[in-house]
Amino acid sequence: MAAATSAVEERSPEWWSRRAWSLLSAVRARAPLVQCITNLVSMDIAANALLAAGASPAMVHSIREIPDFTPRCDSVYVNVGTLAEDWLPSMRAAASAGRPWVLDPVAAAASGFRMEACLSLLELRPAVVRGNGSEILALADSSAAASSKFKGADSSHDSADALEAAKALALTTGAIVAVSGAVDFITDGKQVVGASNGVPMMQKITATGCAVTALIAAFVAVEPSDALVAAACALAIFGLAGEIGMESAKGPASLRMHLIDALYGLDEQTVTSRVNISMRP
Amino acid sequence: MAAATSAVEERSPEWWSRRAWSLLSAVRARAPLVQCITNLVSMDIAANALLAAGASPAMVHSIREIPDFTPRCDSVYVNVGTLAEDWLPSMRAAASAGRPWVLDPVAAAASGFRMEACLSLLELRPAVVRGNGSEILALADSSAAASSKFKGADSSHDSADALEAAKALALTTGAIVAVSGAVDFITDGKQVVGASNGVPMMQKITATGCAVTALIAAFVAVEPSDALVAAACALAIFGLAGEIGMESAKGPASLRMHLIDALYGLDEQTVTSRVNISMRP
Amino acid sequence: MAAATSAVEERSPEWWSRRAWSLLSAVRARAPLVQCITNLVSMDIAANALLAAGASPAMVHSIREIPDFTPRCDSVYVNVGTLAEDWLPSMRAAASAGRPWVLDPVAAAASGFRMEACLSLLELRPAVVRGNGSEILALADSSAAASSKFKGADSSHDSADALEAAKALALTTGAIVAVSGAVDFITDGKQVVGASNGVPMMQKITATGCAVTALIAAFVAVEPSDALVAAACALAIFGLAGEIGMESAKGPASLRMHLIDALYGLDEQTVTSRVNISMRP
Repeated sequence: MAAATSAVEERSPEWWSRRAWSLLSAVRARAPLVQCITNLVSMDIAANALLAAGASPAMVHSIREIPDFTPRCDSVYVNVGTLAEDWLPSMRAAASAGRPWVLDPVAAAASGFRMEACLSLLELRPAVVRGNGSEILALADSSAAASSKFKGADSSHDSADALEAAKALALTTGAIVAVSGAVDFITDGKQVVGASNGVPMMQKITATGCAVTALIAAFVAVEPSDALVAAACALAIFGLAGEIGMESAKGPASLRMHLIDALYGLDEQTVTSRVNISMRP
Repeated sequence: MAAATSAVEERSPEWWSRRAWSLLSAVRARAPLVQCITNLVSMDIAANALLAAGASPAMVHSIREIPDFTPRCDSVYVNVGTLAEDWLPSMRAAASAGRPWVLDPVAAAASGFRMEACLSLLELRPAVVRGNGSEILALADSSAAASSKFKGADSSHDSADALEAAKALALTTGAIVAVSGAVDFITDGKQVVGASNGVPMMQKITATGCAVTALIAAFVAVEPSDALVAAACALAIFGLAGEIGMESAKGPASLRMHLIDALYGLDEQTVTSRVNISMRP
Repeated sequence: MAAATSAVEERSPEWWSRRAWSLLSAVRARAPLVQCITNLVSMDIAANALLAAGASPAMVHSIREIPDFTPRCDSVYVNVGTLAEDWLPSMRAAASAGRPWVLDPVAAAASGFRMEACLSLLELRPAVVRGNGSEILALADSSAAASSKFKGADSSHDSADALEAAKALALTTGAIVAVSGAVDFITDGKQVVGASNGVPMMQKITATGCAVTALIAAFVAVEPSDALVAAACALAIFGLAGEIGMESAKGPASLRMHLIDALYGLDEQTVTSRVNISMRP
């Protein structure tokens, strides 16, 4: 265990950028089928981000379809953004179907109902949980205090503030926990990886967080045995697409377009030279 | 009352454009949390318009979340565009939660069910109702005759045709009523304000009407005590963003992108020199 | 019958491109009201494609609205992409309302539930069924074998592979069957028309298939007596818009924007010189 830990700590930024390219190439080559049970706002951008990255998205949310459909998928993405009572059983069923799955606990503290839903989903052992600082803090606390800090789906906490909460959540749930922010932190509860790609204006596009969690699901589909690496690489790749998109953007709507175009067009040279991931002490 | 009326009549175009800038600045500074229970077509553009303007959108429609969530919101936006029976109780609950709220009666005459829903929502005292000419006429009539004029969600009546209906509806409901068209008219039943920004091609983008009503909700959030001013300024600001977007647009899809970018980038000089609002006799 | 068949066979590419322009002009002139009960991912692009083409989209899915609303529509579009149990009765009711209607059997083989839903909808005599090769093969087979070939909503079969299945399905159901692919094939079970416009990158935009089926519904609305012609022309027009969009695109997101802009701006010269439809032996 100590040796393995040591090996992880020695992963260089170059190792990470090569891994990011390798996983993106695997997504393009294998076009993993990713079932998405995601919120109504995010469906368009999540599907388009998956397609641009080379994956095959499938928005399927009926409980009637889960038994036939989910076992054929390469991974599952569950997002509670516009949670409704009749969608929750489908989320639970899809998360229980034996495929690697990823959770986006959007605005977890929006209501007691939503927090309970998130906590019940966490028990179904997601491979990765990705949220912003406020969401991860709320989940880790899962208390009335967390709820009182709530300010919509937009984060009022930086990712660094939530790092200790992320570690605790990872240890409790067994999931890789990713906290988005100026730097994205990804942790298994012990190791911490920082992914520093991205631009602030991405927060001015609705559902970019949802879209990157969908991308994490695609990366987990091709690297199910190392969800920490999959999550960190997906976050960096999406952030890099945002950086490249920003070079042509005149505002959030053109950034959205250029980001998706850039994600589609990423090449090895760009990925290996610009992905910015590093181990954190 | 006579004095107040007189004061309103003396509001100059310059007064209005300064107010528009002041309210947009307040939205940017305070990032009001706007709960949206809106139709499925409009979610993406409404959320992106709110984010571009500086507000914090939250698409939350489950009845289970209203008691916890709505009281924390700065305003509520209800839109009946893809009305379904199971969403109506949530709309009614959110509208009754004590927050200022805004109604978009999309295609009010589409069915008896929808008209009844709109009429029942009007009883819950929205701060603002915004529709196109056909919608406002139908609501004011709320009769079989109105229904027979129905031609989809696109208006077959100009805003001027519906002005008397808008005044009557405002007096009946106590809401500010806004009618979109070549000129947008905003009235409390006595005073009439005209907002003349915008371009015709905006009607070729789906859900621009829904998006501007969402923006009205954001402006009402920062100016709850004067919904007439909030509505007129939001309509002019959105129309101005359309005008600026049109300078770069090659069709409705690029207009949509440039409009959102322009909304994000609006500065004081542009707003105060180009917002076009005036009192009407 | 032999004479009529002969006449159809003699339709030249020039005849087809003139018809395509004629039908697009009719959509622009008459702005047909097209009720769409379509999947949640496709609503934005389907509505925007219809508006750009000159039609009036109406996303209406509540069973409570069908009796009042559907009879006033010029055509109906049903798409099973995010099928849920509570939407199926609305789909069936709208398809039974006496208006010409069009079916998009997205991922028909995703589940037994979805296949049964598609088969039950086929009994309601759609004017046109449009799918990709995998979907048409699965529908024609409607067997466990078909289901086992399933690979998400993206096609793993070329349109040519599915041509015989399309013919059989057309003869069984009485519908015009269109199979999208590198060449789109449209058949009544005897005649086969090929429409060769379009670019491969359109498959990297979510819901382009759904959007073109919506456009078919608009064309059927203005040419209800010849759904074969309506479907072929709509497919070619949409593909042509994609070709023109591709001239300016840098990736799938900009292609989406330019495609919609191009659809809005198509002129007679462009349509008559570039639409590429021909009878197949």
